[in-house]
Amino acid sequence: MKHQFKYRIIYRDTDAEGVVYYANYLALFERGRSELLRDMGISLTKLKEEQNIVFAINRVECDYKAPAQYDDEILVTTEIERLSKARIIFKQEILREGKILVSAVITACALSLKDLRPKRLPPKLLKNVSIK
Amino acid sequence: MKHQFKYRIIYRDTDAEGVVYYANYLALFERGRSELLRDMGISLTKLKEEQNIVFAINRVECDYKAPAQYDDEILVTTEIERLSKARIIFKQEILREGKILVSAVITACALSLKDLRPKRLPPKLLKNVSIK
Amino acid sequence: MKHQFKYRIIYRDTDAEGVVYYANYLALFERGRSELLRDMGISLTKLKEEQNIVFAINRVECDYKAPAQYDDEILVTTEIERLSKARIIFKQEILREGKILVSAVITACALSLKDLRPKRLPPKLLKNVSIK
Amino acid sequence: MKHQFKYRIIYRDTDAEGVVYYANYLALFERGRSELLRDMGISLTKLKEEQNIVFAINRVECDYKAPAQYDDEILVTTEIERLSKARIIFKQEILREGKILVSAVITACALSLKDLRPKRLPPKLLKNVSIK
Repeated sequence: MKHQFKYRIIYRDTDAEGVVYYANYLALFERGRSELLRDMGISLTKLKEEQNIVFAINRVECDYKAPAQYDDEILVTTEIERLSKARIIFKQEILREGKILVSAVITACALSLKDLRPKRLPPKLLKNVSIK
Repeated sequence: MKHQFKYRIIYRDTDAEGVVYYANYLALFERGRSELLRDMGISLTKLKEEQNIVFAINRVECDYKAPAQYDDEILVTTEIERLSKARIIFKQEILREGKILVSAVITACALSLKDLRPKRLPPKLLKNVSIK
Repeated sequence: MKHQFKYRIIYRDTDAEGVVYYANYLALFERGRSELLRDMGISLTKLKEEQNIVFAINRVECDYKAPAQYDDEILVTTEIERLSKARIIFKQEILREGKILVSAVITACALSLKDLRPKRLPPKLLKNVSIK
Repeated sequence: MKHQFKYRIIYRDTDAEGVVYYANYLALFERGRSELLRDMGISLTKLKEEQNIVFAINRVECDYKAPAQYDDEILVTTEIERLSKARIIFKQEILREGKILVSAVITACALSLKDLRPKRLPPKLLKNVSIK
């Protein structure tokens, strides 16, 4: 299962070098993860309200191969690379005309809101994705 | 009473036109307001925890006269222009070498966390600033 | 002529009060203005490359009536309220379920890249919008 | 050689979970890198103007161990872990009261502005830091 959305770069995303600022791709990746989970029937809002579970980002590995620029139309792709008991490892990319500009592996951990300790992933997730 | 702090523009503040992105000055202004209140003995964190009061921004009027650029050292100034029962009207400016680049009037309203309705300003504030 | 787009709030837009940070609406408004102009046949990229014209924001007036929260689906509307020789005055709003949350009047000025002085608006704009 | 600066978290840095948004630490890290280089006598502005060299971020590895919250005073530390011909590998951390919250390894590559190809690091850098 792979989520993708198109996005057009605005000034807010860019910096004085004329390219997208390195931290701003992470905001696009947040949207991708959130929409992929929604497609799988998982609402982060409900997960929090009903099960007291939130996701926190544990680790980001991000390779910047080429820059996106103002007005570029890019594609943001998101898929689940791997699941463990409490973690989701996402593989996410930014592409422009089929070329990978940015490639990231981002690990999110399910936490209980009560004690902020790792918590087993929601069954809906486990059902949809086979643990490798 | 006037608060001011120096700040050096980094890439994160700028956009592809080579200047500071118009929304990013507002983050600098947030710091100015927060530090001015701290200088007056008002901690927003304590105000929330002890008195259930938060401030929300009601209105921003911002005039952009000239742009700040990457690596510029700017001065951010903040003063209270006026108080009403539940509102603080801040006058804030961005200057570079004495020249005003951005000038703003920003209104914050004290709200009760219980019902999110306007609430009388904390006495410490009223004591320190004469209501015009 | 009015442009509107739907947008779902992500964490990146919000702050620790649980609502959208006041400066972040301005990034949504940028997208609105840029897309409205595109709908009118005006590409900011081409305008810059072919005619050496850029738009700079001169003034923001923004009223915050009620906050948008994480996961809210909002509508961002943009229309041109008024044109002068070198300026476009945009009227922009954020709505949730028909209710106006934020309302702004944002003035952009056309500048020549050569001397950064105000420049007459491109004919395409003037043709499409009657000057009041 | 190690650079460090204190920073107090403002709302702009946080998100609706009440903690600093994961991408926003990267902006703090940018400041750290830029100030460390300045301390070594390297101005990114001069490097660009005089030698046509810019730095681009190639890779970010970032581990989030514990979150910083609104009003926290944190320490941002930056040191150069390793240099290669065209690359600087920075080790950067966010600490609160001596505890590491975030730890990152960030690789910047020197590029020629003419062809955007990797370019030998400026001698000042190589002189100040022994290549391991």
